[in-house]
Amino acid sequence: MLPVFGHLNPDTDAIASALVYARLLSRQGIEARAYRLGTLNFETPFVLERAEMEAPPLLPALEPGTAVALVDHNERAQSAPNLEYLKVTRVVDHHKLGDLTTMQPAFLRFEPVGCTATLLLKLHREARLSVEKADAWLMLSAVLSDTLHFRSPTTTPDDREAVAFLAPIAGVRDVTAYALEMFAAKSDLGDTPAAELLKMDYKVFPFGDPIRPQRWGLGVIETTNPGYVFGRQAELLAAMQDARAADGLDGVLLGVVDILNETNRMLVPGEAEAAVVQAAFGTPTANSVADLGDRISRKKQIVPALEKHFETHS
Amino acid sequence: MLPVFGHLNPDTDAIASALVYARLLSRQGIEARAYRLGTLNFETPFVLERAEMEAPPLLPALEPGTAVALVDHNERAQSAPNLEYLKVTRVVDHHKLGDLTTMQPAFLRFEPVGCTATLLLKLHREARLSVEKADAWLMLSAVLSDTLHFRSPTTTPDDREAVAFLAPIAGVRDVTAYALEMFAAKSDLGDTPAAELLKMDYKVFPFGDPIRPQRWGLGVIETTNPGYVFGRQAELLAAMQDARAADGLDGVLLGVVDILNETNRMLVPGEAEAAVVQAAFGTPTANSVADLGDRISRKKQIVPALEKHFETHS
Repeated sequence: MLPVFGHLNPDTDAIASALVYARLLSRQGIEARAYRLGTLNFETPFVLERAEMEAPPLLPALEPGTAVALVDHNERAQSAPNLEYLKVTRVVDHHKLGDLTTMQPAFLRFEPVGCTATLLLKLHREARLSVEKADAWLMLSAVLSDTLHFRSPTTTPDDREAVAFLAPIAGVRDVTAYALEMFAAKSDLGDTPAAELLKMDYKVFPFGDPIRPQRWGLGVIETTNPGYVFGRQAELLAAMQDARAADGLDGVLLGVVDILNETNRMLVPGEAEAAVVQAAFGTPTANSVADLGDRISRKKQIVPALEKHFETHS
Repeated sequence: MLPVFGHLNPDTDAIASALVYARLLSRQGIEARAYRLGTLNFETPFVLERAEMEAPPLLPALEPGTAVALVDHNERAQSAPNLEYLKVTRVVDHHKLGDLTTMQPAFLRFEPVGCTATLLLKLHREARLSVEKADAWLMLSAVLSDTLHFRSPTTTPDDREAVAFLAPIAGVRDVTAYALEMFAAKSDLGDTPAAELLKMDYKVFPFGDPIRPQRWGLGVIETTNPGYVFGRQAELLAAMQDARAADGLDGVLLGVVDILNETNRMLVPGEAEAAVVQAAFGTPTANSVADLGDRISRKKQIVPALEKHFETHS
């Protein structure tokens, strides 16, 4: 039974892609089961309910040498804690290739598209397998989520085609209305503790010298209600300082992305982070906030700028 | 113009896949050109002549940051000398994933099949593009070469299907006869200097500690005429000792694979290498030769055994 899982702090794509890929593999004769590496965000339960699917269970501890399949990530820092001792046999991902290696030839499918689910749809079509309704819901939701309904600069024609192909199978007539409902569910953060808000969509990235990299925690809150988030600014900044100390990081940043207006105002908890933000993005920090304008994609805009900065300043 | 190239010491798959992938990309609107990273072996000119194709030119020096596509390899030690400064945007390969990283999301297509050309045929079919006759020749020859006409344990059903699909397009009626002709061309080594014979199909692999790996040079001569090779044993052993010293390697091994009888007798130039061969394969060395029996695949049988050995002994 091949475990299939997405990244830590799972988003909708990480969960949906694990479920869909596990079922696809099972239909192809490879017994597989989806798992998750953490608590669901506020959007994914809404999606699962619409798809009439259960959340996958938490990944149990795996024996060294266990074969696993990764979706929507490939770097160790974003994966199972003992990934380097596991046998990665399959990866479907749309991120840059990081420190992954394999002990044997593996099945790797990476394309620079907006969402892993877009690649999973391609795998169905290449294998000439029909798409089941629940899988269509999951993939459709993942594409809308990852691309912010095509607002993100990561969006490609393949993602748009995937949505056009999947919507009729899922039975979604008004994609725009469904995306807004999904984003509203995601934005209903209630009284979630600030430390959890920070880590809902959060990844640790190594930058600079590959042997002794700087390690930065980069969180994102994508919301239709940024006012709510900035209402809790002091709490969030304190949580970021705590995370920096507790996890031994060199810096922590939290982008607050206004989905509907396509803007990103970033919380910057300290002077060291503010200096890096100024150098990497040319953006000053005032009252612990840096206005990054329309740079809303962590993958395509935030991480590359930081990488470029640390290449010459680490 | 995207440069497309296979590994150093190119074999038929490295050359054929570069030519075929460059043409496929060009047909898909991405201007691409095939290059090679070294001298052709004795088999590839025979294949190119039958396909009525020219050999690709040597890869020129590329500016840092140039976008490139790799076929049939992914590790730095087997690639362009400044690979880490190039921008890898595409890889099609059937080897284990080594030290490759990318600066941005890239197109990666890896599957554990016997030959890169088998994956290129899949890319044609997925894109619903017809296969041109010359490309069919190249891919057919590459699959037969890499799998030793299905004798290698790396052979998969996909490779057999590829040959069955390609032979009629290439106009090859008797695949067995064509493969024998190709292997005979490869075995006609003439008066090639021993140092060149050693490096015709030769790769340097890092083993053990990833920070300070041992580096071993592993050559293979696949031949229908092993008697000729063992007639030059003394010269070859001297060339191996020279390569070890000149390239600062920890060891050099040369497998002599009898294609038709599916056996591998390995030349072992020193006591240190003999000790590793004994420990990794359980095989003694006598008169500088270790009989590895039917372990004819460097990728699937030789490298994994050495990896496993050095994991615990480096």
